[in-house]
Amino acid sequence: MAATLEELSRYLEEQGLSCQIEGDGDIEIRAANTLEDARAGEISFLANRRYTKYLGETQASAVVIDRHQEPPDGLTVLRCKEPYAAIALLIVKLHGYRRHPQVGIDPRAVLHPSARIGADANIQHNVTITEDVVIGDRATIYPGCYIGPGCRIGDDLVLMPNVVIYDGCVLGDRVTIHAGTVLANDGLGYAPVGEGWHKIPQAGIVEIGDDVEIGSNCSIDRATLGKTVISAGTKMSNLIAIGHGTKVGENCMLVAQSGVAGSVTLGKHVTLAGQVGVVGHITIGDGATVGAKAGVTGDVRQGDTVLGQPAIPIRQKRREIAILGKLPGMWNQLKNLPKRVRALESQLADRKRRASESDQPAQTPDPKDKR
Amino acid sequence: MAATLEELSRYLEEQGLSCQIEGDGDIEIRAANTLEDARAGEISFLANRRYTKYLGETQASAVVIDRHQEPPDGLTVLRCKEPYAAIALLIVKLHGYRRHPQVGIDPRAVLHPSARIGADANIQHNVTITEDVVIGDRATIYPGCYIGPGCRIGDDLVLMPNVVIYDGCVLGDRVTIHAGTVLANDGLGYAPVGEGWHKIPQAGIVEIGDDVEIGSNCSIDRATLGKTVISAGTKMSNLIAIGHGTKVGENCMLVAQSGVAGSVTLGKHVTLAGQVGVVGHITIGDGATVGAKAGVTGDVRQGDTVLGQPAIPIRQKRREIAILGKLPGMWNQLKNLPKRVRALESQLADRKRRASESDQPAQTPDPKDKR
Amino acid sequence: MAATLEELSRYLEEQGLSCQIEGDGDIEIRAANTLEDARAGEISFLANRRYTKYLGETQASAVVIDRHQEPPDGLTVLRCKEPYAAIALLIVKLHGYRRHPQVGIDPRAVLHPSARIGADANIQHNVTITEDVVIGDRATIYPGCYIGPGCRIGDDLVLMPNVVIYDGCVLGDRVTIHAGTVLANDGLGYAPVGEGWHKIPQAGIVEIGDDVEIGSNCSIDRATLGKTVISAGTKMSNLIAIGHGTKVGENCMLVAQSGVAGSVTLGKHVTLAGQVGVVGHITIGDGATVGAKAGVTGDVRQGDTVLGQPAIPIRQKRREIAILGKLPGMWNQLKNLPKRVRALESQLADRKRRASESDQPAQTPDPKDKR
Repeated sequence: MAATLEELSRYLEEQGLSCQIEGDGDIEIRAANTLEDARAGEISFLANRRYTKYLGETQASAVVIDRHQEPPDGLTVLRCKEPYAAIALLIVKLHGYRRHPQVGIDPRAVLHPSARIGADANIQHNVTITEDVVIGDRATIYPGCYIGPGCRIGDDLVLMPNVVIYDGCVLGDRVTIHAGTVLANDGLGYAPVGEGWHKIPQAGIVEIGDDVEIGSNCSIDRATLGKTVISAGTKMSNLIAIGHGTKVGENCMLVAQSGVAGSVTLGKHVTLAGQVGVVGHITIGDGATVGAKAGVTGDVRQGDTVLGQPAIPIRQKRREIAILGKLPGMWNQLKNLPKRVRALESQLADRKRRASESDQPAQTPDPKDKR
Repeated sequence: MAATLEELSRYLEEQGLSCQIEGDGDIEIRAANTLEDARAGEISFLANRRYTKYLGETQASAVVIDRHQEPPDGLTVLRCKEPYAAIALLIVKLHGYRRHPQVGIDPRAVLHPSARIGADANIQHNVTITEDVVIGDRATIYPGCYIGPGCRIGDDLVLMPNVVIYDGCVLGDRVTIHAGTVLANDGLGYAPVGEGWHKIPQAGIVEIGDDVEIGSNCSIDRATLGKTVISAGTKMSNLIAIGHGTKVGENCMLVAQSGVAGSVTLGKHVTLAGQVGVVGHITIGDGATVGAKAGVTGDVRQGDTVLGQPAIPIRQKRREIAILGKLPGMWNQLKNLPKRVRALESQLADRKRRASESDQPAQTPDPKDKR
Repeated sequence: MAATLEELSRYLEEQGLSCQIEGDGDIEIRAANTLEDARAGEISFLANRRYTKYLGETQASAVVIDRHQEPPDGLTVLRCKEPYAAIALLIVKLHGYRRHPQVGIDPRAVLHPSARIGADANIQHNVTITEDVVIGDRATIYPGCYIGPGCRIGDDLVLMPNVVIYDGCVLGDRVTIHAGTVLANDGLGYAPVGEGWHKIPQAGIVEIGDDVEIGSNCSIDRATLGKTVISAGTKMSNLIAIGHGTKVGENCMLVAQSGVAGSVTLGKHVTLAGQVGVVGHITIGDGATVGAKAGVTGDVRQGDTVLGQPAIPIRQKRREIAILGKLPGMWNQLKNLPKRVRALESQLADRKRRASESDQPAQTPDPKDKR
């Protein structure tokens, strides 16, 4: 939809974000865009100092900036305390969310007669819904998705193409899963028998809370027994692996390619940055943050930020990194110190001995000489 | 299926695991579950000390414990030497393995007329089997799977939904592949030509041995020439990348998100923990273990356990980590040592010079002064 | 196709690679293969010294070797300056590229009436092409692929099975995408609201340049605003994650499981080795190389090679690694040095004090004693 800058400003005020126009409030805005890509009729924003250089060159008709930014001459700006929050709201206003095709239940979808699907569903062709599946209202399911026997799913489900959900899973309301993600495949559950491995049936399930969004091509193991849990409000990026029996708390944020082994407990509002790894059977406390590529090998306390491999408190890790960086420059000196100190010690000992000898009659033999 | 605790105990004895009931052997057990999630009618187990705290609170009707564990009053237990082996057997007994739908060959599957499929197959709708494919008996193939031209596959194949197998691959008996995994896509095979890259046809295949199980969303490159091999009995978790021409030995265990570059040889019974990386053209010996997140940059000897990046023997790596942890605390002292030692050296040299001067006539000039 | 060694040699000469036959030029060659797997009628090559040991045992009828290699008696060789370039050409000559099934537009493909598809397309069954999609000539699309609304795609597209392209993307000519890869899913775009996360519509797209090839099971986020770009000529392996708004330059090479966060700029001809991670909002210069498993946390200059975590210039990192390896062996000495130096200092100070006392009247008090 399009709106004048004046209307957008009023909209932000209504949402509790005060802001002021500097320039022409009658400009019509059709879309939001980056400073680099924006053209006339589009609004952009500056929320990260790295991009200040683009402010002078942008073709945007207006730019959301913070209280302190000095805009170039002639650029119409919308000055806000929180530019990122403001542009987020404007993107919702101008672009809205993905609109899904309204197809009802396509006859080429393959639905088991025992499956129960709520009102206003859009189930596309080539979707497979198996026996005893129960799905709430307003489900949107794209082609190539598969939902295994006995799954129970809430309202407003969105499955993008080729999502696979194995049998027995429980999903809450407003769950969105992106393309290619797999829920509840068997994990690595084997008992060693002789030289080989004997498979242990993976009898548990995966449970997903309300308002969870999961990126593309993720893999979440079903529990061996009990359940693997992704709690309400948690958001996950792409290519993430979650091991069997792990419980992820509410409102966590898991960045791409992070991996959590089995039987781990993540508290609420935990952040795992990209490519993080977490070993099995540990606990990460509420509000903890694990820095990119860290390898967590033990419990992390509530609110802590850890980094490195093995992960340790970030301040300590940064100190290690700083020292490691200085070590090569000092190494030639350090490595010779033990020898030099030994030399000094023996010089001093020697001198002491000689000094004590000169205090005594020269003919007195050293008792050590007898040995 | 359900059974009394007495019957389950007898079953374990038959399998060679001796155990004793302490409590009521007539309790009926319907399922196995975790200590936390178990309810009445379910059996649980304690095999890891971390979970002892749940023993007092469990609602399980019986719990498998080891020889030394002291159970809380009133809890019925099944005391075994190897609780984990015992519960594994009980899960098989009580839950069995995944039962696949018996659909025969669905008419909506797309089979090339030249494909030959063995007896008792269950090929679901929307499966694609292309020309000259040969598959053994009792194949189970879920929707969305694709098998490329000329693949030759043994008996008891299980492909979960959306598995893709490119042309020419050879799979043994009892192979199970989880959803979204891709076998034998082209690897990164390019020759540099000017500023760009010229594609080299990837003319090799992937060969999978008997009893291999591969997790979800893995990618195994076809060989440029010859074959990429996953040998019999090997088990792989999710999101694993195997490069072109690599040979993985028998009964290996590859944990999630590990990656092996091209032309690598893994021996038998090698363990790659989570997020391990292995560079190309090296060999990892039989029985070697690579710790989580390690980056292997050279050959690993048979039976060795390595860790770190670059990966080194684990004892050495742990020592490095321990010292690295102490370095910051000592740094302020260490960094000044060279200066302090220099100061001591010059003091001593000075004193020596003066001492020797006082032994000599003061007018004798130092020979160095001439320069 | 088959050819005599003489014909193959002539073919290489025509391509500008001079070479000489040592042995029988009339041998008929049907295929290329590795030294280990080759049989009679096949040609192999030796381009990496590690494999010299296989030269004596190979069953190949002829082997491409370099100028300096001494072949075993009786082995027919094709001696070339650049064996790897030669075998690459021979693989093209003998094996050619993947031949796709010529099926036209399968009636079981699901095409929106508004979609426009160019000449000579091969669109297989169970492909979904949605409204307003425009595709150039000679497209090859395998089963299970999905192309979202409004995508605009050039000529000679190849999508292997189960590729998913979300709405609005722009792809150039000669783009190949391997199975299971997802383009333009929503990235992690959320604004914190109270304890939870509020989704920001992801209004941007993904743009793929000419001649790009992308491996299997990759995930490339759409931009929040503007576009995520993979530029012409770039080649990507498997299981790679690219964040929203990131621009990858021309002719880059991204190895498996590498991940790039959002708003990153990669120059031309950048190499990311396996499992590399790159944090958001940074720039990696033209021709830079990032070593395996490195974690890039800041800008990388043109042409630099970096390694480690955080990534630093490779020479520096190697020095750090070398010193870290020596540290444990020296630690017992190093850790005691501060104490030993202190002891030396106090001995010397002591002696100095005594020396100065003996030079002065004993009754003169030390001025410090007054404090």
